[in-house]
Amino acid sequence: MNNVSKYTRQFFEAPKTEMKWAGRSYVDKAPMWCSVDLRDGNQALIIPMSLGEKLEFFQKLVDIGFKEIEIGFPAASETEYDFCRTLIEQDLIPDDVTIQVLTQSREHIIQKTFEALRGCKNAIVHLYNSTSLAQREQVFRKSREEIKEIAVSGAKLCKEYRGKYEGNFRFEYSPESFTGTEPEFALEICNAVLDVWQPSHDDKVIINLPVTVQLSMPHIYANQIEYMCENLKYRENVIVSLHPHNDRGCAVADTEMGLLAGAERVEGTLFGNGERTGNVDIITLAMNMYSQGVDPQLDFSDIPSLSETYSRLTRMGIYERQPYSGKLVFAAFSGSHQDAIAKGMKWREEHGETIWNVPYLPIDPQDIGREYESDVIRINSQSGKGGIGYILETRFGYDLPKKMRESVGYMVKSISDRKHKELLPDEVYEIFKSNYVDIVSPIRITETHFVQRNGIEATISFDYNGRKVTATDTGNGRLDAVSNAIRSYTGSGYSLNTYSEHALEVGSASKAVSYVEIITGDGKSFWGTGIDNDIITSSVKALVSAVNNMLNAG
Amino acid sequence: MNNVSKYTRQFFEAPKTEMKWAGRSYVDKAPMWCSVDLRDGNQALIIPMSLGEKLEFFQKLVDIGFKEIEIGFPAASETEYDFCRTLIEQDLIPDDVTIQVLTQSREHIIQKTFEALRGCKNAIVHLYNSTSLAQREQVFRKSREEIKEIAVSGAKLCKEYRGKYEGNFRFEYSPESFTGTEPEFALEICNAVLDVWQPSHDDKVIINLPVTVQLSMPHIYANQIEYMCENLKYRENVIVSLHPHNDRGCAVADTEMGLLAGAERVEGTLFGNGERTGNVDIITLAMNMYSQGVDPQLDFSDIPSLSETYSRLTRMGIYERQPYSGKLVFAAFSGSHQDAIAKGMKWREEHGETIWNVPYLPIDPQDIGREYESDVIRINSQSGKGGIGYILETRFGYDLPKKMRESVGYMVKSISDRKHKELLPDEVYEIFKSNYVDIVSPIRITETHFVQRNGIEATISFDYNGRKVTATDTGNGRLDAVSNAIRSYTGSGYSLNTYSEHALEVGSASKAVSYVEIITGDGKSFWGTGIDNDIITSSVKALVSAVNNMLNAG
Repeated sequence: MNNVSKYTRQFFEAPKTEMKWAGRSYVDKAPMWCSVDLRDGNQALIIPMSLGEKLEFFQKLVDIGFKEIEIGFPAASETEYDFCRTLIEQDLIPDDVTIQVLTQSREHIIQKTFEALRGCKNAIVHLYNSTSLAQREQVFRKSREEIKEIAVSGAKLCKEYRGKYEGNFRFEYSPESFTGTEPEFALEICNAVLDVWQPSHDDKVIINLPVTVQLSMPHIYANQIEYMCENLKYRENVIVSLHPHNDRGCAVADTEMGLLAGAERVEGTLFGNGERTGNVDIITLAMNMYSQGVDPQLDFSDIPSLSETYSRLTRMGIYERQPYSGKLVFAAFSGSHQDAIAKGMKWREEHGETIWNVPYLPIDPQDIGREYESDVIRINSQSGKGGIGYILETRFGYDLPKKMRESVGYMVKSISDRKHKELLPDEVYEIFKSNYVDIVSPIRITETHFVQRNGIEATISFDYNGRKVTATDTGNGRLDAVSNAIRSYTGSGYSLNTYSEHALEVGSASKAVSYVEIITGDGKSFWGTGIDNDIITSSVKALVSAVNNMLNAG
Repeated sequence: MNNVSKYTRQFFEAPKTEMKWAGRSYVDKAPMWCSVDLRDGNQALIIPMSLGEKLEFFQKLVDIGFKEIEIGFPAASETEYDFCRTLIEQDLIPDDVTIQVLTQSREHIIQKTFEALRGCKNAIVHLYNSTSLAQREQVFRKSREEIKEIAVSGAKLCKEYRGKYEGNFRFEYSPESFTGTEPEFALEICNAVLDVWQPSHDDKVIINLPVTVQLSMPHIYANQIEYMCENLKYRENVIVSLHPHNDRGCAVADTEMGLLAGAERVEGTLFGNGERTGNVDIITLAMNMYSQGVDPQLDFSDIPSLSETYSRLTRMGIYERQPYSGKLVFAAFSGSHQDAIAKGMKWREEHGETIWNVPYLPIDPQDIGREYESDVIRINSQSGKGGIGYILETRFGYDLPKKMRESVGYMVKSISDRKHKELLPDEVYEIFKSNYVDIVSPIRITETHFVQRNGIEATISFDYNGRKVTATDTGNGRLDAVSNAIRSYTGSGYSLNTYSEHALEVGSASKAVSYVEIITGDGKSFWGTGIDNDIITSSVKALVSAVNNMLNAG
């Protein structure tokens, strides 16, 4: 990339501030949220939403808990005008929800904007004009004074037209392209607008300071916000609002730092839709708060359903790695992560831990409608015993001995590697069943009798390589006696190394599941699992499965 | 979301630092980059890459300019071991590139790691163990001292095994889950490892401080990094490295602030692939620097081709709004943005501006292989005259008069609105042509003669509603005379309001294109365009097109 010399920094730092924001550690209170999905989000769609789609989206925003919703630019097109009128005339705006409409500073547009609002109970009229050096020079070819005059005359017209309408109409002003504007000038123009509007306790004014294009690092923006917050007139009656875009990938950081710096309100969208790289993602902001114990005052408890609605209405995808909402953001494929999550979940249960602190999971996926089984522990060739054991245990009820998890894990991941694909839980279970559970070839037990004599004496009948065999031997326990009876027919020696057992829910009944490990003379380990109503039979089946695995490997 | 009380903050703030980082405004120098695409990236794929795919990806990373590439965890699986051996044995690692391999602190793993490296010229052996409070308690169930001992004993083993091999092998240590670790303990453990390794000028050690899971805001991380940078032993021979993940959507901010706080190296991936929400996106970091005039020392001049390779090898999508690389990140659908961009581009040309400062475009899309026409100005129902005019001008050569752009813009966006789809440049052009250019019904001129008499006298023959007509009239110019000759046949009066003309390249030849606006008695405006080798004929065709549009509207 040879053209680097054509670039330089395009931002303007705030005059020295104390950086009080940097002394604050986290956002400790939900801001006022304003969704701009239907305006900034919609205008960035390849196919903008239809009236019906907008109405459905609006309802979803209300359901989530948004109290302020920017619904468009009614003077810009008939579609946007009609949407505004439909909301009002069909009485679709709850009493505690305020719609917000955007307007340029031109009289016929302001006039049409107010016309669009007639009959509306609560509305915010959002006036903007572009104030950056680049836009003043290149687009408007106007001086600072002339640009300020655009804002002030618009503010006067808004005030004038408001007088002609009923309804609780509040004002918002945005020095658009704030991040490319000299902070002193942004302050001057905002204060000039405030002088016109004269905010009061009952008529607070929103000053929105957008990151129209991200031009600097987030701490530079935080300094700008702190400077504005400390120098805006009528401060106690001004609500400072943020509206970050994501050109440098820092919209979330800009917003959170801006809140620490004194802002009280955030404009953003669901899933970070919006012009170019998007507006700031309100889901991420809200869940970041939530994950630190701060109630965001928005309800994202069913992200899967929200994702479906969003994708259908906007025809946009949701990035698989989008924080909190992406398909893969809770997924752990790698063995060490799966192991840590499985241990963390176990520890949690054992200790009755109430605070969420499971490794690798910033939040409990269930809190937003996701699942451990399908969303967290996922199996491919990178996976390990922890994840595979976790799936067999939580999903199918098999609590494998630790060493057996290694053996099964190795087999499962090598199959995934060979097939070059992810394995779903059912496929993992199938691999486990067909390789470890009730293996009946070459040895298939048909009858077993036990007698208490010199310890235990076992007499077993079994099919072995087409022959019908009966064998008797003793041992210090039933399993040991069966093992001794079989051993002479297996051609190679082995010893019983591990035996464990637990109950297994099968439908509404409970069965016994047993795990047996045998070790051959040359140190090789083989595992088997048996299931039966009878605990002894289950252990014999496990033993025979292990022996068969040994015979089949030889 | 009712479960907010189950959360609290899980991070540990650094002891008070001076926050020197906050006094720095931007990253003024490229860090050392280390790609972890083949390790952290690969282990987060639904289908991990095959050996052949990894080899192709490795070559791409070399081409981009990475000098350090983490290639995997050779002791973890045969696949990873084989990949390492293939790179070495097939001599695929350039002399100025260092491969990096990950290892746990266990002797058989360290031993196998070194075996995997035999014959390698330059390598970084990357030792890690998990140090967070949560992992110590839940996963390892060990004390701080025991966890430190894991690191120290691993460091000793690494040193011991290095002595047995040739090759320039350097060391890296990561206190994994650093962000969940008490900074004082992270410092203690890193210094203990450094005491073992005794870094020197010729044997610098990398201390990597990962955001394994993002648990805090970026300035908290920056404070942690500053604290570590100021308190690590052997500091002049230690390279402090960052490795942020993106759980809170702040990986880029973490990295950039960490660099301001003293770190010198970054581990990340292309397009932000990696566990869960991904590793930090090196493309975004590099382009953020680039956009501020700092050479990132990586070559991203062909993002479209890189995107193709990446998607094919990883089977992952690239988010449409991913900074710099997403399909939509330069797109301007909305009228006001298109207008500002078009004006900015024009201003740039007029003023011979060398520094890039076009509104709404943080960088020149062409610098990374993107195009204005297909990637920036895109047309749908939200678009306006600016964008549509820009497309007709830059792509098709028609420099429409400003007022005509409004008329055409209105028509194009209403068609997009009605069809409910985006319009491609060719479709915009078709709409323009079929509605404005050389319209020959109901009036079609067949012959024109001019005589210099009382100004200009025009005699025209034309077909009109199936009749053949000849008319003569005078005017103060040729166009005026033709207009007067036609007017009496049109049933309604109109006046010629606008006329403009320019040359149009058609293939290798040049034609004249004319634009004419007529205004009817009741103030309606109609436009027409004419194209001809002859400038007079083109103006007559434009006039007739406008008149026909008026007649057809009637």
